[in-house]
Amino acid sequence: MHVLIIGAAGMIGRKLVGAIARTGSLGAFRVDRLTLADAIRPEAPEGFSGEVATLARDISDPHTAPELLIGLPDVIIHLAAIVSGEAEQDFDKGYRINLDGTRYLFDAVRSLSETDGYCPRLVFASSIAVYGAPLPDEIDDTFLLAPLTSYGTQKAIGELLLQDYSRRGFFDGLAIRLPTICIRPGLPNKAASGFFSGILREPLAGKPAILPVPDTVRHWHASPRAAVGFLTHAATMETGVVGHRRVLNMPGISATVAEQIEALRRVAGDKAVALIRQEPDPAILRIVSTWPRGFTAERAKGLGFKAESSFDEIIRIHIEDEMGGSLPG
Amino acid sequence: MHVLIIGAAGMIGRKLVGAIARTGSLGAFRVDRLTLADAIRPEAPEGFSGEVATLARDISDPHTAPELLIGLPDVIIHLAAIVSGEAEQDFDKGYRINLDGTRYLFDAVRSLSETDGYCPRLVFASSIAVYGAPLPDEIDDTFLLAPLTSYGTQKAIGELLLQDYSRRGFFDGLAIRLPTICIRPGLPNKAASGFFSGILREPLAGKPAILPVPDTVRHWHASPRAAVGFLTHAATMETGVVGHRRVLNMPGISATVAEQIEALRRVAGDKAVALIRQEPDPAILRIVSTWPRGFTAERAKGLGFKAESSFDEIIRIHIEDEMGGSLPG
Repeated sequence: MHVLIIGAAGMIGRKLVGAIARTGSLGAFRVDRLTLADAIRPEAPEGFSGEVATLARDISDPHTAPELLIGLPDVIIHLAAIVSGEAEQDFDKGYRINLDGTRYLFDAVRSLSETDGYCPRLVFASSIAVYGAPLPDEIDDTFLLAPLTSYGTQKAIGELLLQDYSRRGFFDGLAIRLPTICIRPGLPNKAASGFFSGILREPLAGKPAILPVPDTVRHWHASPRAAVGFLTHAATMETGVVGHRRVLNMPGISATVAEQIEALRRVAGDKAVALIRQEPDPAILRIVSTWPRGFTAERAKGLGFKAESSFDEIIRIHIEDEMGGSLPG
Repeated sequence: MHVLIIGAAGMIGRKLVGAIARTGSLGAFRVDRLTLADAIRPEAPEGFSGEVATLARDISDPHTAPELLIGLPDVIIHLAAIVSGEAEQDFDKGYRINLDGTRYLFDAVRSLSETDGYCPRLVFASSIAVYGAPLPDEIDDTFLLAPLTSYGTQKAIGELLLQDYSRRGFFDGLAIRLPTICIRPGLPNKAASGFFSGILREPLAGKPAILPVPDTVRHWHASPRAAVGFLTHAATMETGVVGHRRVLNMPGISATVAEQIEALRRVAGDKAVALIRQEPDPAILRIVSTWPRGFTAERAKGLGFKAESSFDEIIRIHIEDEMGGSLPG
């Protein structure tokens, strides 16, 4: 199987590539070829015995997608996007990359579909940012798309295009709405959601962290490992049972910040919790308070997508995958 | 007030222009200038004392929208689209006109907003085709957008863009989802919904009509007169109370074909009903059976949008507005 990953240098992309390289497979399928693209050149994964191409490309350049498809990949995983904060700050860039870039990709596949009968699986990483307040505590699978950010708007449009192109038979698409990924490893990015990870990641490493919102804020989370699992399942599952609604809310954990902190206390003790300092930021609270608090995710669960069952598990996964399995000190 | 109507040569556009010309106003506002554009040159309305420009323009040409906005219209009413059947047959044309054309318009307004502080009211005629089966009998205002046609996809994308551009303050937008317009005057167009009007319009004129679906099919209707009222209200209402969800399901009448036919019988007698011939068309039934059957339309009603209260009224409006007030013979 030839797998093309666009956005392969991002956090989720790197983890997905690492998992493919480690196992030599994507789900039940052996992978013998990887094409990895991103705005910066992705690293070739260690330990992968198949063929690898790594490319630095701009998806908002209309020539990029046709080039990426030259090897007719069996599976295309489209993760490339600029994040919500940046898409909000730079209107043109957000639309150019998140909307036009996605459309160029879909149209390049369509073009090959019409000339060569090409019909790959295409997995599009969407986001719960397609939803906007007022929202029920638990969002079901038939709730209105009403984004309150340009990023959410761009993702919702990508989903609509994916469903129309799939219905037309140009590709076999699935869009998955990822929960907020927690615990994000590494350094903060420009996302307003950064603190949800920061208040756990930093104290686990013995460092201070800032909490900019009240601990009553509730949100929807899944681990990076779960995200890799979602993408893998979406890339390899049978789609005959999915029907025309090709967008799925992924499962996750609905937790308040207080519940996150209590999980941190159970796993790493009071000393870790003491490293969290409250420093209210009304701008972040205003953004976050419009976000989803929970989902039924019934369709996705019924189709075999699996997430964590507790926040303790999310923290333990971070310790296993990012900290060599144990806390410092 | 200067009003720009794009798609002014279509059925609804002509009726709206006629109403403005007749009254010299749009809602409570005096209209002293009309700019009327369409793919074919719209007719200048009779009896209008203000300034009128009529233009044949292609909205999928990026130069069109900036030209249409030169006079900085206070209200922009965007009705231009190719219909569902044609958008389904010609994928490229549908996206070029219904999506790209709409985006060019929105971006041209945005550009003037950024340079001149321009912020017009912008009314976008959307469609209940943004919904697709499976659907509840009554769709509420928070139900999922899941179109099953390219036309519905393009309209849903237009709505999302309108809401993001309005939230950003580039214009003061409202999208209204029109019911199927019944009774459409004149000749059939390429829409699969044509028979809903045909089975009434043709018998009322003493002509035969074909019914391609079982009479148990239920659908959602409003008169052309109601549609003009919706657009007028959307163009002139206070929007401060609307919030960020700038898309409204318009009110209408939920009726089965059998109920339509019984209304025809009450208004025009058995002789008219006898002119309807059943001739099942599985292709039309397949399309129509995925369509909405009814809406709560609660938000729109609360904001003052009004439709008919019975199908008899819809038929009487057709007789008044299209047939000089009485039946032939």
